[in-house]
Amino acid sequence: MVLTDTLLELFLETRSTSEQICAPLETEDYVVQPVADVSPPKWHLGHTTWFFEEFILKPYTPGYKLFDESFSFVFNSYYETVGKRVVRANRGNLSRPSVTKIYEYRNYVTNAISVFWQKGRIDKEIAAVLEIGIHHEKQHQELLITDIKFILGHNPLLPAYGNAIEAHEKEETFPEFITIEEGLYTIGHTDASFCYDNEMGAHKVFVNEYQISNSLVTNGDYIDFINDGGYSNFEYWHAEGLDWVKQHQVKAPMYWHFIDDEWHHYTLSGLQKIDKETPLTHISYYEAFAFAQWKGLRLPTEFEWEIASGLFEWGKRWEWTESAYLPYPNYKKPTGALGEYNGKFMVSQKVLRGGSIATPEKHTRNTYRNFFHPSQRWQFTGIRLAK
Amino acid sequence: MVLTDTLLELFLETRSTSEQICAPLETEDYVVQPVADVSPPKWHLGHTTWFFEEFILKPYTPGYKLFDESFSFVFNSYYETVGKRVVRANRGNLSRPSVTKIYEYRNYVTNAISVFWQKGRIDKEIAAVLEIGIHHEKQHQELLITDIKFILGHNPLLPAYGNAIEAHEKEETFPEFITIEEGLYTIGHTDASFCYDNEMGAHKVFVNEYQISNSLVTNGDYIDFINDGGYSNFEYWHAEGLDWVKQHQVKAPMYWHFIDDEWHHYTLSGLQKIDKETPLTHISYYEAFAFAQWKGLRLPTEFEWEIASGLFEWGKRWEWTESAYLPYPNYKKPTGALGEYNGKFMVSQKVLRGGSIATPEKHTRNTYRNFFHPSQRWQFTGIRLAK
Amino acid sequence: MVLTDTLLELFLETRSTSEQICAPLETEDYVVQPVADVSPPKWHLGHTTWFFEEFILKPYTPGYKLFDESFSFVFNSYYETVGKRVVRANRGNLSRPSVTKIYEYRNYVTNAISVFWQKGRIDKEIAAVLEIGIHHEKQHQELLITDIKFILGHNPLLPAYGNAIEAHEKEETFPEFITIEEGLYTIGHTDASFCYDNEMGAHKVFVNEYQISNSLVTNGDYIDFINDGGYSNFEYWHAEGLDWVKQHQVKAPMYWHFIDDEWHHYTLSGLQKIDKETPLTHISYYEAFAFAQWKGLRLPTEFEWEIASGLFEWGKRWEWTESAYLPYPNYKKPTGALGEYNGKFMVSQKVLRGGSIATPEKHTRNTYRNFFHPSQRWQFTGIRLAK
Amino acid sequence: MVLTDTLLELFLETRSTSEQICAPLETEDYVVQPVADVSPPKWHLGHTTWFFEEFILKPYTPGYKLFDESFSFVFNSYYETVGKRVVRANRGNLSRPSVTKIYEYRNYVTNAISVFWQKGRIDKEIAAVLEIGIHHEKQHQELLITDIKFILGHNPLLPAYGNAIEAHEKEETFPEFITIEEGLYTIGHTDASFCYDNEMGAHKVFVNEYQISNSLVTNGDYIDFINDGGYSNFEYWHAEGLDWVKQHQVKAPMYWHFIDDEWHHYTLSGLQKIDKETPLTHISYYEAFAFAQWKGLRLPTEFEWEIASGLFEWGKRWEWTESAYLPYPNYKKPTGALGEYNGKFMVSQKVLRGGSIATPEKHTRNTYRNFFHPSQRWQFTGIRLAK
Repeated sequence: MVLTDTLLELFLETRSTSEQICAPLETEDYVVQPVADVSPPKWHLGHTTWFFEEFILKPYTPGYKLFDESFSFVFNSYYETVGKRVVRANRGNLSRPSVTKIYEYRNYVTNAISVFWQKGRIDKEIAAVLEIGIHHEKQHQELLITDIKFILGHNPLLPAYGNAIEAHEKEETFPEFITIEEGLYTIGHTDASFCYDNEMGAHKVFVNEYQISNSLVTNGDYIDFINDGGYSNFEYWHAEGLDWVKQHQVKAPMYWHFIDDEWHHYTLSGLQKIDKETPLTHISYYEAFAFAQWKGLRLPTEFEWEIASGLFEWGKRWEWTESAYLPYPNYKKPTGALGEYNGKFMVSQKVLRGGSIATPEKHTRNTYRNFFHPSQRWQFTGIRLAK
Repeated sequence: MVLTDTLLELFLETRSTSEQICAPLETEDYVVQPVADVSPPKWHLGHTTWFFEEFILKPYTPGYKLFDESFSFVFNSYYETVGKRVVRANRGNLSRPSVTKIYEYRNYVTNAISVFWQKGRIDKEIAAVLEIGIHHEKQHQELLITDIKFILGHNPLLPAYGNAIEAHEKEETFPEFITIEEGLYTIGHTDASFCYDNEMGAHKVFVNEYQISNSLVTNGDYIDFINDGGYSNFEYWHAEGLDWVKQHQVKAPMYWHFIDDEWHHYTLSGLQKIDKETPLTHISYYEAFAFAQWKGLRLPTEFEWEIASGLFEWGKRWEWTESAYLPYPNYKKPTGALGEYNGKFMVSQKVLRGGSIATPEKHTRNTYRNFFHPSQRWQFTGIRLAK
Repeated sequence: MVLTDTLLELFLETRSTSEQICAPLETEDYVVQPVADVSPPKWHLGHTTWFFEEFILKPYTPGYKLFDESFSFVFNSYYETVGKRVVRANRGNLSRPSVTKIYEYRNYVTNAISVFWQKGRIDKEIAAVLEIGIHHEKQHQELLITDIKFILGHNPLLPAYGNAIEAHEKEETFPEFITIEEGLYTIGHTDASFCYDNEMGAHKVFVNEYQISNSLVTNGDYIDFINDGGYSNFEYWHAEGLDWVKQHQVKAPMYWHFIDDEWHHYTLSGLQKIDKETPLTHISYYEAFAFAQWKGLRLPTEFEWEIASGLFEWGKRWEWTESAYLPYPNYKKPTGALGEYNGKFMVSQKVLRGGSIATPEKHTRNTYRNFFHPSQRWQFTGIRLAK
Repeated sequence: MVLTDTLLELFLETRSTSEQICAPLETEDYVVQPVADVSPPKWHLGHTTWFFEEFILKPYTPGYKLFDESFSFVFNSYYETVGKRVVRANRGNLSRPSVTKIYEYRNYVTNAISVFWQKGRIDKEIAAVLEIGIHHEKQHQELLITDIKFILGHNPLLPAYGNAIEAHEKEETFPEFITIEEGLYTIGHTDASFCYDNEMGAHKVFVNEYQISNSLVTNGDYIDFINDGGYSNFEYWHAEGLDWVKQHQVKAPMYWHFIDDEWHHYTLSGLQKIDKETPLTHISYYEAFAFAQWKGLRLPTEFEWEIASGLFEWGKRWEWTESAYLPYPNYKKPTGALGEYNGKFMVSQKVLRGGSIATPEKHTRNTYRNFFHPSQRWQFTGIRLAK
């Protein structure tokens, strides 16, 4: 972390980018929450702003006047340390504060941080929090995109977002398996650049020799799985995965529609025919695992992925790994509210590695550990096989 | 029903009034649905418009071009006759069509009806449907008000709607019981004016001598019930009512808050201290029944209410009666979609009589049979006692 | 009520009959509770015994020693007055007290009542409670039979109970409609014989001229309804009924199975082919209503049923009426625990009249008001049509 | 696996032991299922028998006559390969087959296996299945004990099972931490003795230096955690764990009751005061993790546990580890129904190591991988700390 104007620029760029992501929306699109996982865009805009107010302006700028006393209650996500909050599933019930008011709130806080910076009062400790706040907002930029996709893609009118995020991206023509030798490898973040607490604690891991694909599973591969009865053959599934398939009557990835004997899917550009050569996306871990079983292969562990990551291209899809999300050796939760960022989710989640077309530039790295519950699939998730 | 320009004027006035009710709203307020019973205001605006399109313009105006093919799916409420529809509880997940688009839809349909009228093509049969459509929209005007109150009154910011609907209205100073002699009385709608199918079939009912209060139960009366432990004494409650109290931890009417040792309530003008002399409102049938038991009295039947209705003022509150919502003798559901208006709800509901401060002028009468499930209380419900 | 030895004889006969009903059971059959509505037979045996202990022996016999202190908690059904109790849905989780222990409990209490009687200490007031206790146990005898049928009829082995309760009983060959003139009729219990509080308060009711069938709807009639698509045509159903059909995927009465192209049903004698001339049974109010709509007819009100009841045979089926279960004029709940018997259920229930093949002899009369929620159908319910 | 009479003896001893475990039960205790996780004892007796019939007698003994055709439906647990089955949560709704019938079934199958054995027809392949069947039944013996404890321990009468399983067992007086050097260790089953598929695939694992306690956390330690507000301080909990605590209002381990200012717990010998020096049991992974956080320590991984297991006594409690239940490298599910034994549960579960006072003799080993969902605590679970 460098205390130059770069950080302020990064801050301002980040604030601006969040708003650009929302530019194509109608006011109404900012408000709804079709399922608990998907937050209203206006909530993301407010919550990322509250983070700067709560963890920088409030504690460090004497005489700072909160934009609105009640916003802490409305925009706190899960920080038990900082008091009560709106239950997650109720975010979509809140018509107020209005979108206009939230943009005013954003400007108010962005300006206050800029002024605070320009006064030269930001020391190293505060700058570290500012940097986390920036990365926090970048994480929410990805959620903004996936949540907007969910909101529009589950509307019966299937409106397009009108953006080129999901451009056509055929996968490598010649998929091959790369062999990695057995041995002791170092895992985790090692240099001085920014990373989250869950990546630290670099440590040695022994792995057997293994092979990992240089490319992602494509839509065409997955259609073969569907056509071969993949969803109804229990042999490929975890018991919990099969229950999930039955309960939700899952027959295809999220956003797929079978129309006139052909698979289509909703994209941010609207409904389109499936391109068989594009990397598969919007599948749960359960589906990723079942697909691999069907292939007679497996998913890589997060260690295998990290070790080989210099040998293939990655960043189009969050790639499900076989690893559970667990603390690295010597992991310690930071104290205070920021300690709630990662550690308390280290149970019942799977690790995803890589990044996706919705991930902000430079907001991922080969040690980055993303995590989701095995049933979740509204992110741009995908599959890379190993053996 | 008179085929004069009065009907067109009534139509235009009704269309305009719905929009005036929504004038104080922010765009975001049109969108949310905090509970399944409460529809988003934009849905009401669209649905009442769809009714005219579906039941008049589509069948009777040759060459009529639907404003948007998909709106039938979005704005159908419960008419099985006319096809599929969005599940009620999902109305709040729809950000599109936008509010602007819905106002365009309203103008398009209002104009089409006006043109149709001016061409003189509306015969008696069509006019009857038009009249139902007008009354249907007036019913939704009342729901608009109660749904807006719910949306704003359950927002943690408790924003005011800024309107004088809930003005101060003290109840009569000298409550008295009126005695009605036993005898055979005629119940139901008898003249040629508009009424719903469920009021027709005027018939004789024998009632014993009874007494009915000339005034409504007040907030002060109800505070006495609360203070006397009314909510925790099982003797006053139906078994089902007690389960409801326990499950939802009910301790007071909807919108009541106990702040600094005093009862307040959210009103359309914002949070206010409770006025003890104002008629009680926002209570369920279960609470109305328990209150009456506590008083050693009872609720009137809908017949007792109707017979005595000329002898007291009514119209401030929908008054829970002891009567279940059942068909009158010789009741026949109309055929077709309009037959789904009332008849299919004639089970597990209680009748409310009167009208409320949210009821549009002339949209109630002493034979009007409103009905809700015994647990519902977001309407302006109230209590009149009998013995 | 007569204070002769008849009452003691009736008591002893009733105690004995309950046990005879259970004689064909295996010990395991006494224990299970497949759904909340169906109580384990051993619970019925204990609960009816507890009633005599709680309301007679405990208050009136000085020095009475409870059989077991904890049984009040285990065998109280819903009497809030007498303290805490096992949640209804958990009755089937209790393996103890054992069946043997419950039979000991029965003997202990039966003997104690007999001794108390023989000492001549039972005055009129106590005798009235005793009489209620006897009728209470007779009510539970009917529930024993229907609950046993549910337990065995939902076991995949479909074991027979081995009893002649559901003997073949063809319905009248010539169904006819009886016409009743309009007029004022007296409804309710009028003489000095035993009845429940909900039948009292005899009062005048005016009814229009109507017609009522002299016979019950048969299985054959109902198969016609099914074959005509009755379950899938929304026009015949209440909205709430249709939701029930969809949610539970109802396609036939309870216990019906379509095997090898023919309708069979589980009876207490095991699986049998449906006899088309036998009165239909095990249908909900929703189904009864839909069937009547399909026929272009309706269900009678409980008043119409009672007025005409002398003109047709009844007692094979509990006949759904169109009436909601509401208090008669001047109904007052008795004070104390016995006041919880009927009054607190007077919401959201429909009245059934008649009696069934499972009703103990002399335990019904033409003023008897049975009541169930419109979805319940494990009793021997049936349909009589009116117009 | 040795093809001597030892295997038959082991088989016969195992069959007999299951029945001895049930000897103290009343017939009714065999039937109930208070929660989905807890199966009725008669189901365990039938299911373990069905396993031998389905996987040995049916495929390998020509002309074998099934005891009852319907038992496959009733006693299949989760083997999708072998057809339909009773939904797990409904096992407690089945009064039939009766306990007597199930004992007949046991004898029938035990005899058939013995005869088959004595005919000398059991080759190595069949013997391997027989051995799995024996170990399968031993696993169910442990479940029998924990399920019986749940059934009796959740009965309001708190009846004793009357057995010495939970004898007093104070923990070591001088708890110490053992230090293990960093290095590459081999994990997994290596010799020829019996083990499950999930233990195979011995492989190298690198671990940092760590310390692990030589003794288990005691009741006294845990009371300190409770008294220090452990259940209400969110800092110690996973987010998912805290939700679990709130939803179920957890305030202590399962079976604990706070009576007259002192902690008691239900044991198989009935209600007793808590002994502070006995190892804690019946806690979930969430509680184990929170306790460790409160102590400033952590749970060991399953690798750390296995590596150090020769240096401490184990076998009193199933010890929660920090490890998720995942396949070892090169793990392959066996084909066919036996492949459903372990592999399909390898998601959302935590590994427990050791064994408990309810584990049959010789039915555990230091490579044994038990697994449960983090919320489950009706097994004899416990905590060993690491750092």
